[in-house]
Amino acid sequence: MKDIIAEGSGGNITIGYSANAVVDNWEEGLLTGIAFLVGAAASALAGYIGMYISVRSNARTASAATRSLKEAITVSLRGGAVSGFLVVALSLLGVSSIFFIYSQVLGNPDAIAPFLIVGFGFGASFVALFAQLGGGIYTKAADVGADLVGKVEAGIPEDDPRNAAVIADLVGDNVGDCAGRGADLFESMSAENIGAMILGVAIFTVTDNVEWIIFPLVLRSFGILATIAGLTSVPFFASDDQKNPMTPLNYGYYIVSILSVVGLLITTTVMLGDEWYWFFFCGLIGIGTGIAFVYITQYYTSGAWRPVRDIANASRTGPATNIIIGTSVGMETTAATAITIAFALVASFFLGSEADIPGVGGFTTGVFGTAVATMGMLMSAAYILAMDTFGPITDNAGGITEFSGAPESARHITDALDSVGNTTKALTKGFAVASAGLAAFLLFSAYLDKVKERVNVPLNEQLPIDLSSVDVFAGGLIGVMLVFLFSSLAIRAVGNAAGAIIEEVRRQFREDPGILAGTSRPDYGRAVDITARAALREMIAPGLLAVGMPIAVGLLFRFTRSEELILGDRTIDDPSGWLAVAGLLMVGTIGGIILATFFNNVGGAWDNAKKYIEAGHLQVESANPGAVETLGKGTDAHKAAVVGDTVGDPFKDTAGPSLHVLIKLLSTITLVLAPLFIP
Amino acid sequence: MKDIIAEGSGGNITIGYSANAVVDNWEEGLLTGIAFLVGAAASALAGYIGMYISVRSNARTASAATRSLKEAITVSLRGGAVSGFLVVALSLLGVSSIFFIYSQVLGNPDAIAPFLIVGFGFGASFVALFAQLGGGIYTKAADVGADLVGKVEAGIPEDDPRNAAVIADLVGDNVGDCAGRGADLFESMSAENIGAMILGVAIFTVTDNVEWIIFPLVLRSFGILATIAGLTSVPFFASDDQKNPMTPLNYGYYIVSILSVVGLLITTTVMLGDEWYWFFFCGLIGIGTGIAFVYITQYYTSGAWRPVRDIANASRTGPATNIIIGTSVGMETTAATAITIAFALVASFFLGSEADIPGVGGFTTGVFGTAVATMGMLMSAAYILAMDTFGPITDNAGGITEFSGAPESARHITDALDSVGNTTKALTKGFAVASAGLAAFLLFSAYLDKVKERVNVPLNEQLPIDLSSVDVFAGGLIGVMLVFLFSSLAIRAVGNAAGAIIEEVRRQFREDPGILAGTSRPDYGRAVDITARAALREMIAPGLLAVGMPIAVGLLFRFTRSEELILGDRTIDDPSGWLAVAGLLMVGTIGGIILATFFNNVGGAWDNAKKYIEAGHLQVESANPGAVETLGKGTDAHKAAVVGDTVGDPFKDTAGPSLHVLIKLLSTITLVLAPLFIP
Repeated sequence: MKDIIAEGSGGNITIGYSANAVVDNWEEGLLTGIAFLVGAAASALAGYIGMYISVRSNARTASAATRSLKEAITVSLRGGAVSGFLVVALSLLGVSSIFFIYSQVLGNPDAIAPFLIVGFGFGASFVALFAQLGGGIYTKAADVGADLVGKVEAGIPEDDPRNAAVIADLVGDNVGDCAGRGADLFESMSAENIGAMILGVAIFTVTDNVEWIIFPLVLRSFGILATIAGLTSVPFFASDDQKNPMTPLNYGYYIVSILSVVGLLITTTVMLGDEWYWFFFCGLIGIGTGIAFVYITQYYTSGAWRPVRDIANASRTGPATNIIIGTSVGMETTAATAITIAFALVASFFLGSEADIPGVGGFTTGVFGTAVATMGMLMSAAYILAMDTFGPITDNAGGITEFSGAPESARHITDALDSVGNTTKALTKGFAVASAGLAAFLLFSAYLDKVKERVNVPLNEQLPIDLSSVDVFAGGLIGVMLVFLFSSLAIRAVGNAAGAIIEEVRRQFREDPGILAGTSRPDYGRAVDITARAALREMIAPGLLAVGMPIAVGLLFRFTRSEELILGDRTIDDPSGWLAVAGLLMVGTIGGIILATFFNNVGGAWDNAKKYIEAGHLQVESANPGAVETLGKGTDAHKAAVVGDTVGDPFKDTAGPSLHVLIKLLSTITLVLAPLFIP
Repeated sequence: MKDIIAEGSGGNITIGYSANAVVDNWEEGLLTGIAFLVGAAASALAGYIGMYISVRSNARTASAATRSLKEAITVSLRGGAVSGFLVVALSLLGVSSIFFIYSQVLGNPDAIAPFLIVGFGFGASFVALFAQLGGGIYTKAADVGADLVGKVEAGIPEDDPRNAAVIADLVGDNVGDCAGRGADLFESMSAENIGAMILGVAIFTVTDNVEWIIFPLVLRSFGILATIAGLTSVPFFASDDQKNPMTPLNYGYYIVSILSVVGLLITTTVMLGDEWYWFFFCGLIGIGTGIAFVYITQYYTSGAWRPVRDIANASRTGPATNIIIGTSVGMETTAATAITIAFALVASFFLGSEADIPGVGGFTTGVFGTAVATMGMLMSAAYILAMDTFGPITDNAGGITEFSGAPESARHITDALDSVGNTTKALTKGFAVASAGLAAFLLFSAYLDKVKERVNVPLNEQLPIDLSSVDVFAGGLIGVMLVFLFSSLAIRAVGNAAGAIIEEVRRQFREDPGILAGTSRPDYGRAVDITARAALREMIAPGLLAVGMPIAVGLLFRFTRSEELILGDRTIDDPSGWLAVAGLLMVGTIGGIILATFFNNVGGAWDNAKKYIEAGHLQVESANPGAVETLGKGTDAHKAAVVGDTVGDPFKDTAGPSLHVLIKLLSTITLVLAPLFIP
C-alpha cells in the first residue's frame, strides 16, 4: 500500500494495490472489529495476570529479604519478569495468530492481512488508555488522599494502620504500575508490530518475499530469547554485599542488548536480502536509543547528578523555589529526549533510504528503516517491563516488612531495592515515551495511505500534509491544546478522587472514635471501594476527551469547510476534515512527547530530591565557620521537598503515563476512523 | 510574490515577480540591514521613552490619589497612554517612512519595497527579545530576591526600607512591564504590518492598485484615532464612588471597538474594491477576537469565577494542592485560547478566500483575510498597551503612597487601582499571545515565498511543508523542545539572578549591623546595579539559544542530509535544511502559544487566588455547626497561596512574555536568514 515503483522498459510503472479490491467494506469492518476485541481482551488479560503475580510476589520478596539481598533481587525480578514476558508474548501471539488466520485460514492475500490487524492495535490502545488513566488516578488519589487526611489532618504517621486509606494506597501501586504500564507497552509493541508489517507490505509486493512482512514478528522473538538470557544472568551478578543493587540489573540489561544485536544480525542477514546491512544499522540505532534513554533518565532523576542536587539545594529557601527550580529542570530534560528521538528518526530514515531494493523507492525503505529502529529498541521491552514491575513489588515488600516487624537487616534490603525500583520505574517511562514517538511516525504513514486510497491518489504519489494550510495549522494548535487539556483533567481527577477518599476517612474517624485510639479497625475495604469508584468516575471526562476530540475535529472540519486541495493537475474536494485530523495527530504527538517527558522527569526528580535530603546528603555551611550542618528529615528544607514530591505525584504517575497512551490512541483511532473524515 | 494567476485567453498565465530581478543581493542586504537598525532603534526608543514617562507618572498618580479616584484613574491612564501611542506611532512611522523612502525616493517598485522592510521587523524582534527577557529576569529576580532575603530570612515586612533590594524591586516593575511589553507589541505590530503588506503585493501585481499594499498602514491610523477617542472618554465614565475601577476602562474599550468597526468599514469600502465586505467581515472577526481574549483572561485570572476560587480552596490543604490545582487550571486555559485562535484563523481565511478578485486565487485572498483579521485585532493595541502600562504606574503609586504616609483614603484608591492593574496586565499578555500566533502564520507565508524564489518553484505553485517528512517532523520536535528549553533557562535565570541579589543584601546586613537596626541606610544603588548586571548576564544563555537554535538546525540539516524533494515532475535537491526550519518554526510556534498561555494564566490565577484569600473571601465551615470561619491573611491557607504566587512570578512575568517574543523572533530570523538554509 506504499509508493511502489517497478522499473519497466517504458519508465516507471505503478503497481497500485487496493485492499478494497479484495475485501469489501463490510468484511473489512467485521475483521477489524474482531481484531479490536481480541486486542482489547489480550491487553486486559496481560494487565490482570501481571497484577495477580505481582501481588503474590510481594510477600515472597519480603520473606526473601529476611535471608539475603541476592535472593530478594532474584525473587522480585522474577515476579516482574512474569509481567514482562506475558505482555510481550501476548502481543506477539495476538498479532501472529490474527495474521495467520486472516491470511492462511481465511485466504486473504498476505498483502492485505496486516491492514485488517489495525483493529488489534486500536483495541489495545483503548484498554491501555483506561488502564493507565484509571490506574494512574487510582494510585495517586489513594496516595495523596491518605497522606493529606492522615499526616496533615490527623497527625498520624505515613502508612499508619489507623488510616483507612492505607490499603488503597498499597493496592494503587500495583494498579498504576503493573496494569497501567503493562497495557501501555503492550500497546506500543502491538501498534509498532502492525505498523512495521504494513510498511513491509510495500516491499513484499515488489520482491514477492513474505519475509518482509513477518520480519517484525521474528525479530521480536529473538528479543524474547535475549531477555530470557538477560534475566537469568542477573542473580550471577548479584552478591550479598552489593553496594548498589542497580548494578546487577544494569549488567543484565547489557546482556540483553548484546544478544539483541546478535539476534538482529541473524534476522536481517537471513530475511532482508542483499542490502540487509542498512537495516542492521537501523536496528543498532534503535538498540542504542534504548540504552541512551536509560542513561538520560538516570542522569536527570537520580540523586548522583546536578539536576536533583539543584532541586534539593533550592529546597533550602522553601517550597516555592523547590517548585521553580524543579520546573526548570523538568523542562530542561525535554532537550535530551527530543534530540535523541529526532536523531534516531532522521538517522534510521537515512540509512534505510540508502538500501537499494530494485523497484522500491528510497522513501519506502527509509520509513521501513525507522520501523526497524523502533523494533530494535523494543527488543528489550520485556526486560524493561520486568524492571518496571520490580518497582511496585519491592515497594509493597517494604510495606509488608514494616508491618510484620521483620529484623532491621531485612528493612535495609527492601529500602535499597525500593530506591532502585524508583529509578527503574522512571526508566520505563522514558522508554515508553520514545517508543510512542517512533510508533506514531509509523502509524501516521499508514493513515496517509488509507487517505490516499479513499481520495484516489496513487500510493506512490506524495500526499502532503502542508503546515501552511489553515486546516493543518488549526488542527495542530488543537492537538497541542488537547494534550494540555487532557493533562489538566487527569491532574484534576486525582484531586477530586483524593477528595472522595479524604471524606470517607474523615467519616470513619468521626463515626468510630475507636479507630484513632487504636481500639477498632477501620473499614479498609470500603476505602478501597470508594477509591475505585472515584477513579472510574473521574476517568470519564479525560477518556471522552481523548476519544471524542479527534472525531469532533475531523467531522467539524469536514462538514463546515469546503475548500479544494490542488495537487499538480489533480483536485481533491473537501480535504479539510482529514487535513485537520492529520495536523492534530502529528503536532499533538510532538506536544505529547515533550509534555509527557516533562511530567515524568520532573516528578522523578522531585521524588529523589526528597530522598536525597532524607538520606542526609544536603549540607550547608553552619553558623560557626568551617563546620557543616546537615539538613535532613524534619527540617524546613525537607518539608519544602515533600511539597515538590507531592506535586510530582500526579505529574509522573497519572498525567505523564496517560499521555503516552493518548498519543498512541490518537494514532490508532484516526487510522481506524479515517473514512469518517473523508467525503 | 504570491501565487498570482491572471486569466488569459490561452488558460492561466503566471505573472512571476522576482525581487532579485530589480534589486541585486548586495543592495538587498544593505537595505535590509538599514531597516534592521531603524527597527531596533525605534523599538529601543519606544521602550525608553515609555519607561521615562511611566516613572514620572507614578508620583503624580500618588498625588492625584489624595484628591479623588477619578483624577487618579485619569492621570495613571494618561501616563500609560503615552507608552501606548508611542509604540504604535513609532511602528507606523517606521514602516511607512521606510516604505516611502525605499519605493518613492530610491525608486524601487512598490511591489519590492515591502520585502526590504522585513529587516525592520527582525530588528524590532531582536530588541524585543532582550528587552522582554532581560526585563522579565530583572523584575522577578528583584521581586523574589527581596522577598526571600527580607521576609523569609531577616523577618522584616515586604517593601521594608531596611531591605536594600526594595528599590530594585520597584524599578523592576517598570523595566519588565513598560519596556518589555512595549517592545513585544511594537514587534507584533511591525511584523504584522510588514507581513500584511507583503501579502498585499500579490493582489497589487494583478490589480495594479497600490492601496492593497498600504491598506494596513491606513487601517492602523484609524485604530489610533479610535484609541484617542476611547482614552479621552474614560474620565467621563469614571466617578468618585466607583465600585469597580475596571468599569470605566471597559467602557473605554467598547468605544475603541465601536470606532474601530467604523474605521474598518470606511477603509475596506474605500480601498479594497468591489468585494470589500469579505475583508470587512475578516476585520470584524479580528476585533471580536480581541474582545474575546479580554473576557477569557478575566474569567481565568480574576477572583470572581470558578478557576481562581478552586485554587483558593485547594490552598486549604497546603501548598502542594495549591500547585496541583493551579497547574490544572493553567492547562485548562489553553483550550479557550487555542480554540479562539483556530476559529479566527479558519474563519477569516474562509471569508477572505470567498472574495472574488479577478486573477487572484482563493488561497491568496484567504491568507490576506487572516492578515485583515490580525490588523482588526491590533487596531486597539494602543489602548491595550495604555492599560498595561497603567499596571506598573498604579503599583508604584501605591508604594509611594505608603512611603509618604498619605491618608488612608489615598491608599484605598491606589489599592483598588493596583488590583485593576493586575487584570489589565494579564489582558495584554493574552492579547500579545493571540497576535503572535496570527502574525506567525502571516510571516510563515512570506518565508515560503522566499524559499520558492530560491529553489525556482513558481510562486503560484504549492510548496508543501509535509509533516510526514522526517525533516519536518524532527524540526517540529526540536521546535517544541526549544520553547520548553528556553522557558527552562528563563525560569532558572530568575533563580540565579535572585541568588546574586540575596548575597548582596546579606553582605550589607552583615557588614553594617546598623541597617537592620534602622540607624543606617542600605546601599540601594548597589543592589540595583547588581540586579541589572545579573539580569544581563543571565539573559545570555536563553538569548543565544533563541537566535542560535534555528540557525543551527537549518545548517545541520542542510549539510548532513542529502535527500531530494519530488514535486510532480520537478526535483528539488537538498531541501532538508529549509524543511527542518519550517517544521521548527510552525510547530514551535504552536507549542509556544500554548505554553505561553499556560504560564501567563497560571501565574495570574495564583496571584489572584492569594489576593482572594487576603480579601477574606475564603470561608470554611467552622467547628461549631452553622458558623463559618474566614481563612485570611496569616493562616496556613494564605501561606500556601503565597507559595503559588511566588512560583507564578517567573512563569507569568519572565517565561510567558519572553515566549511571545521568541515566537516572533523565530518568524523574522528564519525569514531574513532563509538563504542560509537553501543550497
